[in-house]
Amino acid sequence: MAIAQEKIIARLFVASALGEGALLELSGNHHHYLAHSLRAEAGQRAALFNGREGEWRAIIRAIGKKSVTVEAELRLRMQYDCPDIQLAFAPVKNEKIDFTVRRATELGVSALLPVITQRTVVTRINTDRLRANAIEAAEQCGRMDIPLLHPPQKLETMLSQWPPERTMLHCDETGKGMPFHSLLPGLDKGKYAVLIGPEGGFSPEERQRLASLPYAKAVSLGPRILRAETAALAALANLMAWAGDWEERPAFS
Amino acid sequence: MAIAQEKIIARLFVASALGEGALLELSGNHHHYLAHSLRAEAGQRAALFNGREGEWRAIIRAIGKKSVTVEAELRLRMQYDCPDIQLAFAPVKNEKIDFTVRRATELGVSALLPVITQRTVVTRINTDRLRANAIEAAEQCGRMDIPLLHPPQKLETMLSQWPPERTMLHCDETGKGMPFHSLLPGLDKGKYAVLIGPEGGFSPEERQRLASLPYAKAVSLGPRILRAETAALAALANLMAWAGDWEERPAFS
Repeated sequence: MAIAQEKIIARLFVASALGEGALLELSGNHHHYLAHSLRAEAGQRAALFNGREGEWRAIIRAIGKKSVTVEAELRLRMQYDCPDIQLAFAPVKNEKIDFTVRRATELGVSALLPVITQRTVVTRINTDRLRANAIEAAEQCGRMDIPLLHPPQKLETMLSQWPPERTMLHCDETGKGMPFHSLLPGLDKGKYAVLIGPEGGFSPEERQRLASLPYAKAVSLGPRILRAETAALAALANLMAWAGDWEERPAFS
Repeated sequence: MAIAQEKIIARLFVASALGEGALLELSGNHHHYLAHSLRAEAGQRAALFNGREGEWRAIIRAIGKKSVTVEAELRLRMQYDCPDIQLAFAPVKNEKIDFTVRRATELGVSALLPVITQRTVVTRINTDRLRANAIEAAEQCGRMDIPLLHPPQKLETMLSQWPPERTMLHCDETGKGMPFHSLLPGLDKGKYAVLIGPEGGFSPEERQRLASLPYAKAVSLGPRILRAETAALAALANLMAWAGDWEERPAFS
């Protein structure tokens, strides 16, 4: 197939509308990446996606000093959104948060919700950095949407506004939660969220509050004490395998 | 319970035998950690484990310039070994390998097998660094055994000596593998290994070789392209939930 043989040198998330013949000026990081890191040339091809109109093959028309002009040629894949599985997490140090955001994006989360709990130490979040990490991970893993980034909010605020149809699985490090394998086979493909507490765990009051919520289920991740970021990925990976889209195959565009 | 009220300031893996009244001289990193990082004092207590005789409460008897003398007082927990689930992985850059080793140790792997495939770029491995990471993660996550560390070996060497009773799940990034959720419920608590290829994937010959092996099963981790370290953890987390010990609760000693 001719389409597949055109070498794609980069896969980029763009904000603009995409369609046949659409001309885009890529600046900032995208310009730097194409012009300097890849030393791209006019005539080479990139893939573009914007989270709405699928993935497009685009040809580089010109490399300027501050921007790269590309033209969308052909839709390679129709838009495909990740399952509606969110991750709510207590923010930690930058490095670990980068890691969690990137890995969760690869695993296919639909939204990232930083949540401030009673024992959360880090309360300021660099949202731009979070977004940049999510976008880079999405570009690399082949997903066609970017996880929605919520502003940080207090746990109680989040809980009081929670849509009851979205099941929340919170990881209970006291081991009193339901083992994952007895929960998973009963799940349908609905709306979910994984909630991970801070390193010090939820406070007794928070735990009690969570236990009182009809939409929240405590799950157990076994006898070892997982770090927050390991717990987040372990829970997401299990949920994705059952209530996500792991029966889908990767598309190689 | 009086035992639980004794504050444990550190949890350390030691090589020596443990038993009531056993005196140990902790040097090197352990000395540094206790004497300098924690500024520990005689009379304080640590937990010790050696992978064979359970977890012991020990009292610090003396802090010397080069070693700390501790005396084992009381067994807090009987020896408990992690499930026999191994991780075979193509080595990557130090930073990522540290990450994989630490997270896999927390998840409870029984052994780490670095394996050189045709497309493996990194072939030299700092085994001391690998071991140090595995030990630190074991100390922190509460496990009582350290994952066995195999020396790096070629994929073909590993396959030709593979014990047929150990099922190998290799992650097939072409998406032709079995989705995890159709495989997991049928698994018993036996011997397993997860095999993760390098960033460039297995070569066609390697894939063919793996397909010919009765003990190997190709599994699929869904439509997104996971980085090697994300794939390793995602596969391990699923396997641990079903064929591991996630129905066990953490013990707080």
